[in-house]
This record gives sequence, structure tokens and C-alpha cells, in this order.
Amino acid sequence: MNLDSLKQQIDFIKEIDKVKYIQRKTKLFNSDRHENDAEHSWHLAMMVLVLAEHSNEPIDVLKVLKILLIHDIVEIDAGDTFLFDSITDHDNREEELVAAKRIFGLLPPAQADEFLAIWEEFEAEQTAESKFAKALDNLEPMLQNASNQGGTWAEFNVPYETIIEKKKKIGIGSETLWAYSKGLLDDCVEEGVLKK
Amino acid sequence: MNLDSLKQQIDFIKEIDKVKYIQRKTKLFNSDRHENDAEHSWHLAMMVLVLAEHSNEPIDVLKVLKILLIHDIVEIDAGDTFLFDSITDHDNREEELVAAKRIFGLLPPAQADEFLAIWEEFEAEQTAESKFAKALDNLEPMLQNASNQGGTWAEFNVPYETIIEKKKKIGIGSETLWAYSKGLLDDCVEEGVLKK
Repeated sequence: MNLDSLKQQIDFIKEIDKVKYIQRKTKLFNSDRHENDAEHSWHLAMMVLVLAEHSNEPIDVLKVLKILLIHDIVEIDAGDTFLFDSITDHDNREEELVAAKRIFGLLPPAQADEFLAIWEEFEAEQTAESKFAKALDNLEPMLQNASNQGGTWAEFNVPYETIIEKKKKIGIGSETLWAYSKGLLDDCVEEGVLKK
Repeated sequence: MNLDSLKQQIDFIKEIDKVKYIQRKTKLFNSDRHENDAEHSWHLAMMVLVLAEHSNEPIDVLKVLKILLIHDIVEIDAGDTFLFDSITDHDNREEELVAAKRIFGLLPPAQADEFLAIWEEFEAEQTAESKFAKALDNLEPMLQNASNQGGTWAEFNVPYETIIEKKKKIGIGSETLWAYSKGLLDDCVEEGVLKK
């Protein structure tokens, strides 16, 4: 065994503990408590185990799990970005790339390269796995907001049309989950928590 | 698509949000904040992605991920058990089995059966995958305690010999990680946070 390599792996494992402190804008289901990135990543990983059959294309579930488990680690340095942020542009990709290189770079070189490639695959949204991962990443906060009287949609006055525009990539990963999501939005309109 | 089946899957996804409220005895790294089961499960899933090469036996990483992601869901009903609890017996397996059947039973039947079988595989500790999953489940709090001046070992006055006895199953999954763990304990003894 290479002891240096194990030490690097343990250092990485300690560093990513910080993911548990990164607070998201969205809140837990039927709750006033904000979700953190570790909880969010666990929930998305569970969602692919449950919902994989609804992907538009055949997917490698292990690859989607890897994508979802690591996708927010860059936020340790780059911070959480909010989909409906209307002031700063959502795109802080350069900052995130620097973060990815620093944090994954704590690992032994072959693993660092593998994790960086997985994160880049997610960001590029070209493969079946990254499209389905993006769908789930967008679906979870929809379910949460629907359970919280509109959640961040109500809090930040996000119009129905903006939600449809920003969330339609769910359909690129899964037509089934997109149809379900639109039904959820219609329910929110009917309940008066969202204006159409 | 079977709409009833999707509804069952979404109901399960909502139900398991409760995992985020289950507080463990151990605390985050270098921290006073308790860890919850969702954060713990995410961290273990990351650990298998990083440490799989150290398993004593070849393992199916996807299977270990499934085990680790779902292993604490039963605690929604059965509560967290503490390894060093000296009053009640650690074993609440019957209560956990009832919990597993109720919670996984929210899923469509084939998935419910699959998840129950995965959880039972973990509990039985017979397969290479469940042994490695147990090793990681035992390693994470060791790393945390070592970073927290002894953490729960100091808090509950757990003697060195008890830790060795309870944690030696790490070696059943990975001799490498067990050797590393014993080194950690020796460091704690040297620092005076643990008495030998």
C-alpha cells in the first residue's frame, strides 16, 4: 500500500466535510429549515436509485451517482448559486473550475483527474448521465417548493413563466419527470401560491 | 408510464427527507455541530468512491453505494443507535426491520423488495460489499472523533480497549483502513485525549 496516497485520500475526505455547511436557498420538505449541500447531494443520489427508469435515454446509474455525489463540492470555494438570482449572473463557472482543481487536486493524481472529468461532464450537460443528473438537481427543489407554499418561488416573486423557462431542462433528462413537474406547477397555481 | 408507480416513488422521496433530522452522537470534523444521518450517508458514499481500492475483497462499488445511501433510512422510525451505548443494548434489529418494511414499502413492490434486500445484506455483514460498507460506517466517526479531541470517546469515557473491540470490524472490510485507524488511536493516546 502507498501510505502517501492514503493520506491524500483521507485529507480529501476531511476537506469535503465543509459541504455540510453550505446552505441552499431552498428548504426541507414542509419545513422552515434550509437544506445544505450534503443533504441535497444525498437526496439526489437516492432519487436516481428510485427514478432511473424515467430517464429518456439508457443511463449508467453508477456514473449518475458519482456525478450527483460530487457535483456541489466545488461550492466549498465557489459558494452556492441560486437559479433564480436576478442580480448576479448564475454562471460562475471559472471560479468553480479553480475550486474543482484545488479540491479534487487533494486526491492522488488518477483520482483527481477522474473526479474533475466527472464534474466537467455534469457541467457540459451532453451525456445521458449528466442530462438525467441535471433533471434531478432541478426536480428536488421543485418538490420542496411545492411542499412549502411556493418556497423560493414565493419568497423571491418568481413568475410562472420564468420557472418553466429555467426548469424545462428537466425534460431533456426525463419527459416523464417534466410532465410530472408541470402538473406540480399547475397545482401551485390552483392553490394560489403561484401566479400564471 | 405507470402514474401510480411514479406517485409511490415521489411519496418515498418525500418521506426520506426525515433522514435529515436524525441527529447522530458524533460531530462534524473539528466542530461542535452534530452530524445528521443524511450528511453521514453522503460522506460514506463519497468515501467508497475514494477508498474502494482498500477493500480486502473485490467489491461492486454500485452495490456498496446503494447500501450506504439507504443504510440509515430505517432510523426515521427506529432512531439512531449509539455504538458505545452502555445502557440499552445496541441491537434494535426487530424495530428496524418493521421500519424497513414500512418505509421501503412505500415504493412500487419490485423496488421495495430490492431496497429491503440491500438493507438486510448490510445488516447480515456477510458479503464483501456489506463488510466494506460496515468498515466505512465505523471509520467516519473515528476520523471525526480524532479531529475533535476524542469526541464521543472523551464525552462518554470510552476506554481504549472498548474502542478496539467495537471497531475491529473495520479490519474485516479493510486491513489497510484498520491499520490506519489503529494509528489514529495511538495518536489520540499520545495526545492524551484517550487513555490506554
